[in-house]
Amino acid sequence: MSYIKLHDRLPNIEHNLQMWVEQCKQQCHGGKVASYIPELAKGNKQALGIVMMDAYGEQCSAGDIQTVFTLQSISKVFSLLLALMDNGEEIVFHKVGMEPTGDSFNSMLKLELVQPGIPFNPLINAGAIAVSSLIQGSSQKHKLERVLQFFRKCAHNDSLQFNEQVYQSELHSADLNRSMAYFLKDNGVLEHSVDDVLDIYFRHCSIDVSVKDLARMGLLLAYNGTDPITGEQLIPKRYVQIAKSFMVTCGMYNASGQFAIQVGLPAKSGVSGGILTLIPGAIGIGVVGPALNSKGNSIAGVELLEKLSNAYDLSMF
Amino acid sequence: MSYIKLHDRLPNIEHNLQMWVEQCKQQCHGGKVASYIPELAKGNKQALGIVMMDAYGEQCSAGDIQTVFTLQSISKVFSLLLALMDNGEEIVFHKVGMEPTGDSFNSMLKLELVQPGIPFNPLINAGAIAVSSLIQGSSQKHKLERVLQFFRKCAHNDSLQFNEQVYQSELHSADLNRSMAYFLKDNGVLEHSVDDVLDIYFRHCSIDVSVKDLARMGLLLAYNGTDPITGEQLIPKRYVQIAKSFMVTCGMYNASGQFAIQVGLPAKSGVSGGILTLIPGAIGIGVVGPALNSKGNSIAGVELLEKLSNAYDLSMF
Amino acid sequence: MSYIKLHDRLPNIEHNLQMWVEQCKQQCHGGKVASYIPELAKGNKQALGIVMMDAYGEQCSAGDIQTVFTLQSISKVFSLLLALMDNGEEIVFHKVGMEPTGDSFNSMLKLELVQPGIPFNPLINAGAIAVSSLIQGSSQKHKLERVLQFFRKCAHNDSLQFNEQVYQSELHSADLNRSMAYFLKDNGVLEHSVDDVLDIYFRHCSIDVSVKDLARMGLLLAYNGTDPITGEQLIPKRYVQIAKSFMVTCGMYNASGQFAIQVGLPAKSGVSGGILTLIPGAIGIGVVGPALNSKGNSIAGVELLEKLSNAYDLSMF
Amino acid sequence: MSYIKLHDRLPNIEHNLQMWVEQCKQQCHGGKVASYIPELAKGNKQALGIVMMDAYGEQCSAGDIQTVFTLQSISKVFSLLLALMDNGEEIVFHKVGMEPTGDSFNSMLKLELVQPGIPFNPLINAGAIAVSSLIQGSSQKHKLERVLQFFRKCAHNDSLQFNEQVYQSELHSADLNRSMAYFLKDNGVLEHSVDDVLDIYFRHCSIDVSVKDLARMGLLLAYNGTDPITGEQLIPKRYVQIAKSFMVTCGMYNASGQFAIQVGLPAKSGVSGGILTLIPGAIGIGVVGPALNSKGNSIAGVELLEKLSNAYDLSMF
Repeated sequence: MSYIKLHDRLPNIEHNLQMWVEQCKQQCHGGKVASYIPELAKGNKQALGIVMMDAYGEQCSAGDIQTVFTLQSISKVFSLLLALMDNGEEIVFHKVGMEPTGDSFNSMLKLELVQPGIPFNPLINAGAIAVSSLIQGSSQKHKLERVLQFFRKCAHNDSLQFNEQVYQSELHSADLNRSMAYFLKDNGVLEHSVDDVLDIYFRHCSIDVSVKDLARMGLLLAYNGTDPITGEQLIPKRYVQIAKSFMVTCGMYNASGQFAIQVGLPAKSGVSGGILTLIPGAIGIGVVGPALNSKGNSIAGVELLEKLSNAYDLSMF
Repeated sequence: MSYIKLHDRLPNIEHNLQMWVEQCKQQCHGGKVASYIPELAKGNKQALGIVMMDAYGEQCSAGDIQTVFTLQSISKVFSLLLALMDNGEEIVFHKVGMEPTGDSFNSMLKLELVQPGIPFNPLINAGAIAVSSLIQGSSQKHKLERVLQFFRKCAHNDSLQFNEQVYQSELHSADLNRSMAYFLKDNGVLEHSVDDVLDIYFRHCSIDVSVKDLARMGLLLAYNGTDPITGEQLIPKRYVQIAKSFMVTCGMYNASGQFAIQVGLPAKSGVSGGILTLIPGAIGIGVVGPALNSKGNSIAGVELLEKLSNAYDLSMF
Repeated sequence: MSYIKLHDRLPNIEHNLQMWVEQCKQQCHGGKVASYIPELAKGNKQALGIVMMDAYGEQCSAGDIQTVFTLQSISKVFSLLLALMDNGEEIVFHKVGMEPTGDSFNSMLKLELVQPGIPFNPLINAGAIAVSSLIQGSSQKHKLERVLQFFRKCAHNDSLQFNEQVYQSELHSADLNRSMAYFLKDNGVLEHSVDDVLDIYFRHCSIDVSVKDLARMGLLLAYNGTDPITGEQLIPKRYVQIAKSFMVTCGMYNASGQFAIQVGLPAKSGVSGGILTLIPGAIGIGVVGPALNSKGNSIAGVELLEKLSNAYDLSMF
Repeated sequence: MSYIKLHDRLPNIEHNLQMWVEQCKQQCHGGKVASYIPELAKGNKQALGIVMMDAYGEQCSAGDIQTVFTLQSISKVFSLLLALMDNGEEIVFHKVGMEPTGDSFNSMLKLELVQPGIPFNPLINAGAIAVSSLIQGSSQKHKLERVLQFFRKCAHNDSLQFNEQVYQSELHSADLNRSMAYFLKDNGVLEHSVDDVLDIYFRHCSIDVSVKDLARMGLLLAYNGTDPITGEQLIPKRYVQIAKSFMVTCGMYNASGQFAIQVGLPAKSGVSGGILTLIPGAIGIGVVGPALNSKGNSIAGVELLEKLSNAYDLSMF
C-alpha cells in the first residue's frame, strides 16, 4: 500500500512552517497562559511549536517542539474512543449526547434546562466526566492503567506518564468539575463514586506529551484508527469517525464553528495550549502554544493552522 | 476535465435507492408533517423521494420525485451565499456569528444571554433574518428579484417561483420571527425596516422546488460554486466552503451533531421535509419526505441518507 | 370616621424631610438619568422632591416638588387595577402570573423557558403589555379615554394628560417592547393588534404627573381604593390588596427584595425617577429623583425613603 | 403591657378551624407527599393540622396536631436569623442576596448566569447552604450544638432533636445540594469544607417539630424576636424584620407571589408539609399537611390559610 508523502502533499512545507511560526509568534503576547492551576501558569507564553507526520513516519517541524505539556481537553477525544471500545455506541450515547452546546465548556446550564439532563457532547467537561465513568477495569487502579496504556499505544510512546503535579493541582482546583459530577450523579448519569470518576478524568487530562506525540496520535486518527507506520489497527474506524465528527463540531471550544470555517480540519485543543489536528488520510499534526485567546485556544496555534490550511487548501469543506 | 460518474462512484445505486426508499417509507407514520401554517400541513406524510445528480447531469432517483415543496430553511444556505457575495465576509460576520447554539432554531435565549446579542449562526432563524437584511438591491422589489434570480441560477431552473400562498401564510404566522426581528433591531443587528427584512426572509423560504432542483443546487455546492454541467462559476469557492462548514455544524437543526456522526455529509433541512445534501466533489442530492422527526428533520429522509452513507462509506469523517 | 394625621403619625416630619432631602441629594451625582429616549435624558439629575399626604389632604413636602415627569412603570400598577376592574381576577391571571422573576424588567428569558410562556407578573414589561391588552373599550380611542379618565380619578386631577412627546419618543424606541409583544402574540397571550396594545401601554407610561399626584394616588392605595378625602370608592379593596402585594414583591425592579428589607413599604418606581409609595392606612407618598441607581430606581429617592422608614419605624415587616 | 387575645382578634375561630380543616382535607388527595427520601415518603398524605397561639400562650387548634415532622426548608428562616446574629448584616449579605429568583428552589441557573454568582436569597437551597456556612462555633460539634440550642429557644422547647434517620437519608440523597455547594465553593461563596457545611444544613433541616412548635416559633417572629410569653428578647427586631421580608417575597417557593396575594402573611413552607406563618403583632401559626401541590407547598395547608385570611381579613396588604 502506498501513502501520500508529506513533502509531496505539501511542497516547500519546511520553509513555510519556519516562516509562519516566526510570524505567528508575534500573536503570543496578545494571549494569556491558563492560570487556574499554578502548573499551567508556568507555560511559556512565547512558545509555539508544530510537528507534522506522514504515514511513513517522516516529520516536518518548526519552533519549540521540545516543550512538554499536559493533554488537558485533548485527552477527551481518546477517553471517548476508549469508552466506545469498552462499551459500544449505544451505552456511551445513553450517557452523553452528540450535539454542540453554544455554551462554555464548563457550563451547567443545559444540564438543568434540557431534559433529560445528560451532557450535550463528550468534549465539554460534563460530557468528558460522564465518558470517564464508562472506562472499564476490575479496579480503580486497573482503570487508570488501561487509560495510560491506551494513550501510550495511540501515541506509540511507552514513556507517556501522568504528570503527578498537574494531577494534584487539578484535584485541588476541582470544585466546579466536582459540582458538575454531583449534578450528573443526581440525575443518574454517573453511577460510580464521584471521586473515582474525577480521578480518572483528571488523570487523563494530566498526561504529559510533546507535539510529536500529538502528531502521532493525529496520524492514527487520520488513518481511521490503523497506525499506518506499524500497520496495527488500534481503534475501529467507526469510532474514529465519531471522534472526528465531534472534533469538527465541538473540538475547539466555543470557536469550533469558526475553526471549521477558517481551517476546516478536525481538531481538539487543550488549555495547556496544545492542538491535535490532522489532514484526513494523510498527515497527523501536533501544535503547542500556551498563550490562549479568549475562547481558550492557542492564539498563535490557531493562526498557524489557518495559514497552513489556506496555503495548501486543506479544508475538508 | 473528467468528473466522477454517479454509477462508477455508487455501483448498483438505482436498485439500492428503490429498496431503501421502500424501507424508509415505513418510518413516515412515526413522524409529523409541519402544521404551523395550513399550506405545510397539506404535505403528503407518506411521501419520500430522492434525486442524485452527477457532474455530467446524469441522475438517479427513487420515490416521489414529482412532489413540489417550498425550500423553507434550506433557503438559508443560499441567502447566506448571496449576502456573502453582496457584502463580503467581514460585514456578514459582523452581524451573525459562526457557532452552533445547542438551542432551538427559533430560540431567543442567546440573543439575550450572550453579548453582543448577535445571532450565533446564519442557519437559525434569527441569523437568517439578519442575513436577509444584508441582501443588496436598489429597492425592496429589486432585492426580491435578485433573490429569485440567484436561486434560479443556483438550481439552473428559470421557472422557480415564490409560492404566494405559502408566503402569505408564513406572513400571517410570523409573530415569533417578528419578535426576533424586533429584538435584532433593538440591539442594532437589523438596520432596515423589520417588515421589509421579513418580507425577503419569508419570500426565499417560500420558493417552490422539486428534489431535482435540490440535487442541482447540491451539485453546485459539491463543486464549490462552479456548476460542473455548464462550467459557469456562480459563487466563489471560499463562500461555498463557509456554507458547507455551517451545513455540517448547524445544518440539521439540533440534530446536526448526530447527522455528522451518522451520515457525515454537509446538509440542510427544511420544515417542508426537504433535505439538500451532497457528496463533496462528486454528487448533488435532493430528498423530500414531509413527515418530520422530533428535531424537525424528515424522518424517512434522514434514515435514507444514513443507509446511503453507510452503504457507500460516504462520511467525510 | 377619624383618620391618622400626618403630623401625629410622624412628629417633626417637616424638619426631617428638609434635612434628608439635602443629605440625599448628595447621592444624585452617583446615579444616571435614563437616556434611552431623549425626553427622559432631559430629566434634572440633581432634582429630588417628596410629597406626603394624609387622609385629610394635609401635605408635607420638601425639595423639587414642581418637577413634572412621566409615570413610566408606575403606571403599571394602575393599568393592572383598571384591567382587574374590567375583567376580574380570573381573566387577568390567565394572561399574567403572580410571581417575581429575578430577571430584568425587560427580559424575555422566562417567556421562552417556563411554560406556558405567560409573563410572570404584571409589573415587568411583558406583563404590563399583557395587562394593557385587557383594558376594555368600544374602540381604541375609547380605551385610551378610559385609561386617562381612570388615572385622573386616581390622582384626583382632571388635568392629567398624555405627554405627546414622550409617547412619540417611546414609540420610536419600542423595538424591544415590540419584540416582547409579538412573542406574547405568538404564544396566545395577546389577542389584539400589537400596535394597538403597545399604543395603550406607551400612553399610560407617558402620563405627566407631579409628586403631589403620586402622593394622592398612593393615598388611594393606602386606603384600599376609597379616596379618604372625597370618601369615594374608586377601586375594590381586593384589587388594591393585589396591587400592593405586587408592589412589595416586584415593585422596585430587581431590588424589590432589598427595598422590602430596607424600607418595607409597598412601592413602585419608574425610569423617570418617580416612586409611588404609601404607609398603609395612613399616608400616600410621592417621590421624584431622576438620577437612577444600577437597578433603575431613583438613587436619592430610595435613600430618602430608607431614612424616612427607619426614623419612624414604618416597615410593614 | 396588654396583647391582643386570640379569641378577641378571631371570633368563633375554634368552630371555624374545625370546619375548614374538614373542608381542606378534601384537597389532600390531589397532592403528593415528598418522596425523594424514604423518611418523607412516610408522611401521612391525609393529615392536616393547625395550631394558633397568642401572646398569652392561649392556643386554638384543629386536625392532626400530634404529627411530628421535620422542619426542612422552614429551618432556613432560623438559620438565617442565627447567622445574622453571629455575623451581622454586612457579612451575611456579602454571601447571599435579597431578591426572589423566579426559579426553582434548587436551581443553579442564576449562579452561573448572574455575576458574581452568589445565591439570590437565603431561602433557596443555594442561599441556605451559604448561610449555614456562616454559623459560628469553635468546632463542627459546637456549631451543631449552637444550632440546636437556638431552635430550642425559638420554639421554647428543650426537647427538640435532630431526626437522625431523616438526616442520614438527606445526606444520602444529597447529590444536587452537594453540586450546589461545590459550585458555591468554586466561586468563593463557601470558604469551609463542603461536607461540614452540608452537615449543618441537613441537620437543621432535619429537626423534628410539631405544629405547636411552629406556632411558638411564629409567635416569636410575630413579636419581632421577643417571646411575648416569657418576655425574653431572643433575636434583634431588625433581623426578624429581614426574615419576615424574605418570608413574604420568597417564603413559599415559586408560589410566594401568589401566597402574598391570596393569604398575605409572612410564611415559610417545608417539603415535609409544614408551614410556619404569623399574624404580625398578634399570633403565631403552625400548619402541617404532607400532601404537596405542584409548587411544593402543603396543598391543604395553603387552602386552610387562605380561608383563615379571607374570613378574618388578615392580609398585610
